[in-house]
Amino acid sequence: MDPIDQKFLKLGAEFAPGQEVRQGTDDIEINGEKISGTFVDFSHGDVDAFPPIPGAIDHFNEGVELGAEQAYTEYRGSIDIRESLAKKLTRFTGTTMDADKNLIVTPGTQGALFLAVGSTVSRGDQVAIVEPDYFANRKLVEFFDGEIVPIQMDYDQTETKAGINITQLEEAFMSGVKLFLFSNPNNPAGVIYSKGEIQAIANLAEKYDVTVIADELYARQVFDGRSYTHYCAQENVHPEHVITIIGPSKTESLSGYRLGVAFGSTTIIDRMEKLQAIVSLRAGGYSQAVLQSWFDEPVDWMKTRISQHQAIRDDLVALFKAADGFDVRPTEAGSYLFPKMPPLRISIQEFVKVLRLQASVIVTPGTEFGPQFTNSIRLNFSQDHEAAVDAVKRIIQVAEEYRA
Amino acid sequence: MDPIDQKFLKLGAEFAPGQEVRQGTDDIEINGEKISGTFVDFSHGDVDAFPPIPGAIDHFNEGVELGAEQAYTEYRGSIDIRESLAKKLTRFTGTTMDADKNLIVTPGTQGALFLAVGSTVSRGDQVAIVEPDYFANRKLVEFFDGEIVPIQMDYDQTETKAGINITQLEEAFMSGVKLFLFSNPNNPAGVIYSKGEIQAIANLAEKYDVTVIADELYARQVFDGRSYTHYCAQENVHPEHVITIIGPSKTESLSGYRLGVAFGSTTIIDRMEKLQAIVSLRAGGYSQAVLQSWFDEPVDWMKTRISQHQAIRDDLVALFKAADGFDVRPTEAGSYLFPKMPPLRISIQEFVKVLRLQASVIVTPGTEFGPQFTNSIRLNFSQDHEAAVDAVKRIIQVAEEYRA
Repeated sequence: MDPIDQKFLKLGAEFAPGQEVRQGTDDIEINGEKISGTFVDFSHGDVDAFPPIPGAIDHFNEGVELGAEQAYTEYRGSIDIRESLAKKLTRFTGTTMDADKNLIVTPGTQGALFLAVGSTVSRGDQVAIVEPDYFANRKLVEFFDGEIVPIQMDYDQTETKAGINITQLEEAFMSGVKLFLFSNPNNPAGVIYSKGEIQAIANLAEKYDVTVIADELYARQVFDGRSYTHYCAQENVHPEHVITIIGPSKTESLSGYRLGVAFGSTTIIDRMEKLQAIVSLRAGGYSQAVLQSWFDEPVDWMKTRISQHQAIRDDLVALFKAADGFDVRPTEAGSYLFPKMPPLRISIQEFVKVLRLQASVIVTPGTEFGPQFTNSIRLNFSQDHEAAVDAVKRIIQVAEEYRA
Repeated sequence: MDPIDQKFLKLGAEFAPGQEVRQGTDDIEINGEKISGTFVDFSHGDVDAFPPIPGAIDHFNEGVELGAEQAYTEYRGSIDIRESLAKKLTRFTGTTMDADKNLIVTPGTQGALFLAVGSTVSRGDQVAIVEPDYFANRKLVEFFDGEIVPIQMDYDQTETKAGINITQLEEAFMSGVKLFLFSNPNNPAGVIYSKGEIQAIANLAEKYDVTVIADELYARQVFDGRSYTHYCAQENVHPEHVITIIGPSKTESLSGYRLGVAFGSTTIIDRMEKLQAIVSLRAGGYSQAVLQSWFDEPVDWMKTRISQHQAIRDDLVALFKAADGFDVRPTEAGSYLFPKMPPLRISIQEFVKVLRLQASVIVTPGTEFGPQFTNSIRLNFSQDHEAAVDAVKRIIQVAEEYRA
């Protein structure tokens, strides 16, 4: 096979969140009646149920009014906006940064992840990634010809820490890993790394000279008043050894504007800009203006948003806990649930297709987050509350029908 | 040196258009007084002088109103918008296409180029690129570890064809080139490939099984009533062997929305979508709605826009032709001039810095378009007419002061 064919064979996007319409379903046989109910797409949040930050569109329109200055920014983003972001992110994370040297604005956090991995991984480099973790991490490493070293996370074992296997991580670092890439809060498990875990990772990374990319996309949506530890703010982390990624696409519902931010190592940010120059030039110029609304939301708006999500979580967790054969760890931060299901007589990919056709519910198969999660599904519960509750009842019903 | 350092050393963005503010100038000594005049940035078009398509922003706002449906499209773009685009592009190019299989919406044409090259080039593949041609082509091939086979274009030799060296092209194809990547109209030379040249390229590509990426970004802005030949529409071109790239960032001034389109080979479009899934997910959802205004401009608006650019071209060409030691081929399509300058006693990179500091004029050094263009500069003349004329006078004056 042609090397390029091989490369793209590994890059399948059919089961990626949002791509369900491209799934082949000719081979799917439905067992039983169609179950009626409001269509719910748990593959991503519903920005109709949780609309963007108030005033976001006004900033966009002001950007258009500004004209050329806003349309053509430096590739790393408008300096005014980077300066404002640096202040906000310093306040949020406790890390200091130079707006001109340590920060880049990207088209979405996906854009930031791509640039960060492309700027740190070359052929044959060993990269440690957590299982389960964000579906694109694995694909990114494979695309840049890196070698994946999986690190297990026993996310269902405990509620006082994420459950990353630190012994396994040290073995991986010892054996030559150059980069560790992880999301915190974890996507899909919705768990937060404890302070002890973060410090253990930092100690190991510094000891073995490993660069760390920390994806903090959901770090603002923390439930139950839990504490959150920013990797980049740890005293023993060298500022040149870390890139942090964050953006307003999730809790703030600005995904349609395609905005992300990466900050950290001067060297890596420089590379990311060089790469952005050939990938997409810059984050949309007018969209960049929308970042003014970020971290500047009305206080009550964020508070309300978080408590609304927490309430949805509570209802969905209760449903899954009560269902025979299901189990789920309650989300600590972010909008994801990653329930385990009872054994089924069809594969998880088939179940996902059946669920869509029979019950008008879209979920993402666990296998997108690690090959071993053949018995889990991921739900983004940033949805209309009532519709989400009803849709989870349908998931449980369909699972019952296809039980092994 | 670390392989990743080596890779990024080749990816310098300091002299890339729009990045001038990042240029080091500590070493620059100015010879003579500062020359006053309106600041003109010829590195890209001025969307204040030539504003976006009327109503573009309204489509964006309607997209925001639509909400989730517009924010989260398939990675290849909203099917409604792709269907409308397929019709428009069929009409424009004379090529038929399936909206679902043969077309992808990307963040800018830069995004399309990146995805197209990333979907066709793997390590060690030989890629033919024209010299001079768009500055990112070379960098893209290098980033994907391809091997560049340069094809010379004697753009100043003739006004009846672009001047590509067809003999050299056949030799390159014979020796194993897999991909040919070219812009038509050519950036930076502003020339159009003749029908004969396009057909010769098509014959060779089919004979030697070479995939072609044709960048037609400026194909709508043709001067003097010239005819334009679409590569993809040639009878002997197999539809699976070509990707065409186009977008509304230039003539239509929609660059701030970051929109591009690629159409052609089903296999390559599929790969491009898989790659987009990890690069940036999708072109900004709300921005995609703006594509409704594209190819739907008031007839007179496009006509006027083209004639206004033609008038600027005429004035700038006359100035360069009259200046001692300068020479330039008049632009046939697009907004670029690529004049040759008299021999200077400073390098072209130093001249570009001096010009910015001394005369408030930004141009792009010829070396961005091929290493041998040490004596040329590129100007995007989509500027305020009067300011552009005055700025070219300052270019000529500064060149005179630094003449060898």
